[in-house]
This record gives sequence, structure tokens and C-alpha cells, in this order.
Amino acid sequence: MEGLKGACIFGQSGGPTSVINASAAGVFKEAMRHRCITEIYGLAYGIQGVLKEEFYDMRKEIPYVLELLKTTPSSALGSIRYKLKDAKDDTDYKRILEVLKKYNIRYFFYNGGNDSMDTCNKISDYLKQVNYDCRVIGIPKTIDNDIWGTDHCPGFGSAAKYIATSAMEIYHDTKAYDKGKITVLEIMGRNAGWLTASTALASHKGSGPDLIYLPEVEFNISNFVKETDLLYSKNKNVMVAVSEGIKDKSGRYIAEYSSDLSGNKDSFGHMQLGGLAPVLVKALKDKTDAPVRYIEFSLLQRCAAHCASKTDVDEAYFAGQVAVRSAVEGKSGYMIGFEREDGPEYKCSIKLVDLRDAANVEKKVPGEWINKEGNGVNRKFIEYALPLIQGESYPPTEGGLPRFAKLNKVPADQTGPKG
Amino acid sequence: MEGLKGACIFGQSGGPTSVINASAAGVFKEAMRHRCITEIYGLAYGIQGVLKEEFYDMRKEIPYVLELLKTTPSSALGSIRYKLKDAKDDTDYKRILEVLKKYNIRYFFYNGGNDSMDTCNKISDYLKQVNYDCRVIGIPKTIDNDIWGTDHCPGFGSAAKYIATSAMEIYHDTKAYDKGKITVLEIMGRNAGWLTASTALASHKGSGPDLIYLPEVEFNISNFVKETDLLYSKNKNVMVAVSEGIKDKSGRYIAEYSSDLSGNKDSFGHMQLGGLAPVLVKALKDKTDAPVRYIEFSLLQRCAAHCASKTDVDEAYFAGQVAVRSAVEGKSGYMIGFEREDGPEYKCSIKLVDLRDAANVEKKVPGEWINKEGNGVNRKFIEYALPLIQGESYPPTEGGLPRFAKLNKVPADQTGPKG
Repeated sequence: MEGLKGACIFGQSGGPTSVINASAAGVFKEAMRHRCITEIYGLAYGIQGVLKEEFYDMRKEIPYVLELLKTTPSSALGSIRYKLKDAKDDTDYKRILEVLKKYNIRYFFYNGGNDSMDTCNKISDYLKQVNYDCRVIGIPKTIDNDIWGTDHCPGFGSAAKYIATSAMEIYHDTKAYDKGKITVLEIMGRNAGWLTASTALASHKGSGPDLIYLPEVEFNISNFVKETDLLYSKNKNVMVAVSEGIKDKSGRYIAEYSSDLSGNKDSFGHMQLGGLAPVLVKALKDKTDAPVRYIEFSLLQRCAAHCASKTDVDEAYFAGQVAVRSAVEGKSGYMIGFEREDGPEYKCSIKLVDLRDAANVEKKVPGEWINKEGNGVNRKFIEYALPLIQGESYPPTEGGLPRFAKLNKVPADQTGPKG
Repeated sequence: MEGLKGACIFGQSGGPTSVINASAAGVFKEAMRHRCITEIYGLAYGIQGVLKEEFYDMRKEIPYVLELLKTTPSSALGSIRYKLKDAKDDTDYKRILEVLKKYNIRYFFYNGGNDSMDTCNKISDYLKQVNYDCRVIGIPKTIDNDIWGTDHCPGFGSAAKYIATSAMEIYHDTKAYDKGKITVLEIMGRNAGWLTASTALASHKGSGPDLIYLPEVEFNISNFVKETDLLYSKNKNVMVAVSEGIKDKSGRYIAEYSSDLSGNKDSFGHMQLGGLAPVLVKALKDKTDAPVRYIEFSLLQRCAAHCASKTDVDEAYFAGQVAVRSAVEGKSGYMIGFEREDGPEYKCSIKLVDLRDAANVEKKVPGEWINKEGNGVNRKFIEYALPLIQGESYPPTEGGLPRFAKLNKVPADQTGPKG
């Protein structure tokens, strides 16, 4: 059975991950299998590519390069963070409709996080409203793992694997000398602590942080210092993982304290850099005599394709494939979700989640997975996260370095489709 | 032919690397092949292990664990930075002699950087002076690649591979959005720019920094801003790599400028963290309107065994083996060095370097490998470094994470050898 005849378009949105391009590969390769899909377009910079009528003809790409996308980090087409204009102003929607019509686009695939699912949902609603037959399917993607309605999100497993691996290596490094040290690892995730919690996978292997502070738990800076110092006096070496998004009782980000650190607003240093580092380092140095090393994993955690999870890469690719298949079968207004099956072995099936449910709701680490002291996670988190980091997905190398995809990016024929 | 009969001892010294344990594996495995070597000891925390009479019986380790050492980062025995007491005070030397005699230690292997080769040299001289027959061999190790007398040092290739790989990945990340950004990567190496230069391997693949500032070149902060801003206005995205050790005309570290940033010595923030970040970020923000992202590779670059160079791991192991063989053959007072053979293919042979020559001399990036603007390296550096990052040495994994060696660390029998 073949579906509606027309072109398909695919866009990437939000922060890059190690596997967003794997989903792109899944979409493009699957789309090529369906005769009803006349043209295959890749959007330059997400939805902006529609608004600006900038997209690429993906049939002009070399198959091997599309294959390489599976192991190429970041966003090969270009990404964007853009909120569509509000319902009261329908300029954006009209423009989208105009472009879809011009190219006879009947399949719209969008790969992103919460905000992108919201965009997807709004477009889906609008197209229904104006009776333009176009199947809209969202594909989840975020290292933050905070999209509602799915067991987990492609992107998370690879980031978690990189973070846990690096935490293990740093743990070994901190043990090299016969003297104590407090090592603080700052991990991404402003509101959801999934990535910070994933350092517990290293602890589970005996080489990870002793204390883990998630944004889900109210952060008390003097407790943090007390707990860290106690372990320092006991074990000499302490490793602590903190989320960039830890907040105090009043809901204020601890990182914002850095602006209180200097009376002079024009002085810079930490003012320029801001962030948690100066706040936590000062707090520790004020109360302990320990050397403190502060390590920010920074962008590395969202782009380290050389340490990606094979499970994650495969699932991201599969999500792209299923998105196309579902649309061809007539489904629209859904996000691809993962559902974990019960049983001792990890098995996930795909389900379709209503876009309205997925949009804009943040999924956090459940309270019952966090220890009662609020400074670690328990066995339940390990059982959840461990299957997601299984398998190694090494990019092919060339001259000792990864070979990443470089797309031709041939602009789509602006006269519209011939078919 | 078998050599002098007696025990051997091996110690690790200086900063950890991804391959220092590979040299340890080479020493231990080779030592087990020689009947003249009665006992095999591993020092707890380098030379401190001799002074405190703390070392392990390496024959009590499981062979598979010794094999795992090849892919285990950091220093499995423990490392130290310790300068032996001066010639005028021979307490340390007397103590060393006492311990060597007690255990009938006739082979002394020491793995480290410039300072450790100095330690090695002094011990060698002292033992000759007092007529105690013990063969002393140094094995080079440093990510900084700054030991004189050898083409390169084990540890450098793996750090360079990790840095170049990560730079490529971050480069891809910076291209995700359709807006400009200045990304600054801070790389280790206080006096020698080998590691910072190795980001050029990423640029050589078309995905690396546009500008590279080494400590070998006098750093002028306004030139740095001018050069960066010029590329920013031209290309929107600029990536810059700087060595932590860049210095101004007067030889002052640029990182020290951070203490000038605030009038109040008691204010903290950047004062606590110090370093280059606030200085360079402020300089850029003062003159350009670009968003600036500052990324410190920090400890990751010296312990990322998951991204090690196979060439480096193999050479580190081989250096350990040859150290033992040379000592058994009667050599003493040398460091194991690498000599690159001429020809289009990379081939290195081992040579013995007089410890007196290797000790305390820092090898820097040659001036003729640096471009005339002083903000990059040329083809000669690429030709030098590229062979050293070839091949992948993935640690075996277990449950999605690396399996690292955990030594039994059975203390040596303090009653001394029976043989």
C-alpha cells in the first residue's frame, strides 16, 4: 500500500546531539523506499528553511555520505531555536502553507525537543484547519531526555555514555597522587537531571562521583559543602557531579549567585563567565582546605560522536524510519515515542504519541529514583539508564580521526516539483 | 645471555597520561620473561614508594589485569611530583640505597617527564658513585611531548588524538546554528605548544580552529582580538585554540592578568578560578559583539583512554619492554628514546639517550613549524604529528563502559627476597 503522493521535508531543531543526524539518515533512506514520496528535502536551519524557502535536494547526496550521517555529530542541515509567531499573527503559518503548496509537500518531519514538538503540533493543527493534506510527524531528540510521553529520547544515551566514560577516566586521574582533592563535574541539563544522574553509571562501576546533585532537588549550598567536606576528611578524594541547573529553595539558579560575588557590576572575570564554577569553588574554599578542581563538560557532552551509544544511534535511525512509514500509512499529528517492554532484557517498541501531549511538557527524574539525602540516585535509575548506553558506535576513521559526513547541499529546484 | 641477578622495581612519576600504564605493562610482562629478574616490584607513588618502602609484588597480579593496563588511563600504581633532596643532603639517596640493598634490587625503571628523568639521572649517578651495581633506565612519558632527545614522547599521541577529535566535534557543533560565535579552546602545555598545535590536525581535516596560539610565540592580546574579530566578521564562526601557557613580551603568563581584573584582592570569582578564561573572554567582549564560548579541555585531555592512539599505546608498551631488555643487556643511565627513520612511511626505532642529556631540557615546537603570523602551524607540524595519532585503541567494554585494570596491589614481602 502506498500513501499520499507528494514531496517530504525534514528539519532539525534545537540543540545538537550526537545522533540527530542518525534520525535524518533514517528519514532520508526510508523516504527513498516509497514511490509516493516524490521529492526529499532537507531544511536549512529547521523551520527557518521553510520560511526562507531554503532547503536541499537530498536525492543529490551520495548514499555513502547519508550512511556517514549516522555517526556524524551536531546538525548537518543546520538547526534553529525559533518559536512560531503566535496564533493571533498567522504570517508564519501562511508562509509555511504557501511553501508547502508550491513544492507539493505532503510529508513534514521535524526532529527536536519540547519546543520543536510544539512547533510541529502548531503546524499540524494549522494545516488541518486550512484543510491542507500533509502528514506531520515529530521525531524526538534531546540530550536532556526531558520529553514527555516517551521512555527516553534519542541523544540521551550517547551523552550519558560519554559523560559516564569521561567521569570514570577523570576518577582514575584524581587517584593518581597520594593527596586529596575535591573534583567537581558540571553537567548540562537546566531543569531535568537525567544527564547529571548518568554520572552514577560511573559510580556503579566503582569509578564515579560520590555525590550527585540534580536540579530536581532543592539545592542547599551549606549542605553541599558539609557533605563534600565530610567525605573529603574521610576519603581524601571526593568527586561531585552537579547539574548546571541546580536551584535554591526559592527556585533561583545557584549559578545566578555569581552576580552577587562582586559588588562592582562593571568588574568582570566571573561576571563575564558567570555560571556555577565561581559560586561552588568559593563555597568549598571558604570552608575546606582541599584543593578544588572544577571541570565543565561543556559542549563536548552533546557532540562526542566518537563515544556514542550504538543502542542510541540505532534507535535514532529507527525513529526516523518509523516516522516516514507512519506518515505513508496515513498517520499525522504524532511524535515517535519509545515504550519499554517489561522483562529482564531491554526491549523497546515504538509508539505514536499525540503531539499535543508531547509538546512543552518537561519530564524530570522521578523522585523515587533519588536517594533520601537528595545527593544521589538509586538502583532504579541505573536499571533505567544502563541499557541505553550499550554498544559502541565508532565513526569510521580516516588518518586517525573520525570521518564525518559532508553534505553536498544542492538547493532544491525553486521552480517546484515537476511531477 | 642473561644479566645480573636481582629484583627490578618500576615507578610512575609526574602527571598521568592515557598510556603510562601501557609502559608499566611492557616492563612487567618483559621482566617476567627474564630469569635473572628475581622479583618484580611496582612502586606506590613513584620514588616515594622507595623512601617509604611501599611497593607491590607484581607477580601477584592476574595476567589479564596486566594486559588491561595497556588501555587503562592515569597511573595505576600512583604517581608523584618529588624532587630528590639536593646533593648536599644525601638523606634521600642513602635511604634509596638502603632499600635497594635490602631487596637486592638491581634494575630500576622510572617512567616520567623531564623532572623524573632528572631524578633517574641523579639516582644513576649516586649508585655508580657508591659502587652499587644497579641498572637505571628512564622511560619517557608526558602528554606535553617536551622531553629532549626523543622524536616524541609516549602519551602525546593519545592526548593529541583526543584533542583533535574533540576539536572536530566541537567544530561541527559550532556550525549548527545560522549565527556567528567565537569559540575558544584552552589546551594544556605551559611552556611547549605541542598539544595546542595538535588542534591543527582537526583543521587539516577541514574542521578545526582558524587560529592557534602557542606558548612558543609572544602573545599580544590586541593582535589576538584583532585577528579573531577579523575572521568573525568575515566568516561569522571562528574557532581559536590557545595554550594555557601563552605569555606576553615580558614573559608574563597571560593567565596572570586575571589578578589585575579586580582591584579588590579579596573579591573572588575569577580570583578563585583564575586562568585565561576571564582575561580572553573580557578582551574579546570589549572589542567585538560576538557571543563567546570558552571551553577548557581540562583533565580530559590527559586521561581519555577511550580515544587513545594505537600507535601511542603500542610504542608506550614497547618502550617498557625495551627498557627491561636494555637493562638485562647491561645498559644503565639511559632514557629510552624514539628515532624517526627517513622515508615516506612512518617508522620509529628505539635509541638510548644519555639521561644527562634528557634531564631537565624542554623541547619546544620548532620556530620553522610555526607560521609567520605566529597564529598557526604549517605542514611540517602536520607531517610530524599525524603518524602519532594513527590507529584506535579502544579499551574493552563491559556493560557499555570501559573496563579498566584494578590491581591487587599485594605489598612486597618486607623481609626482603628469599632468593
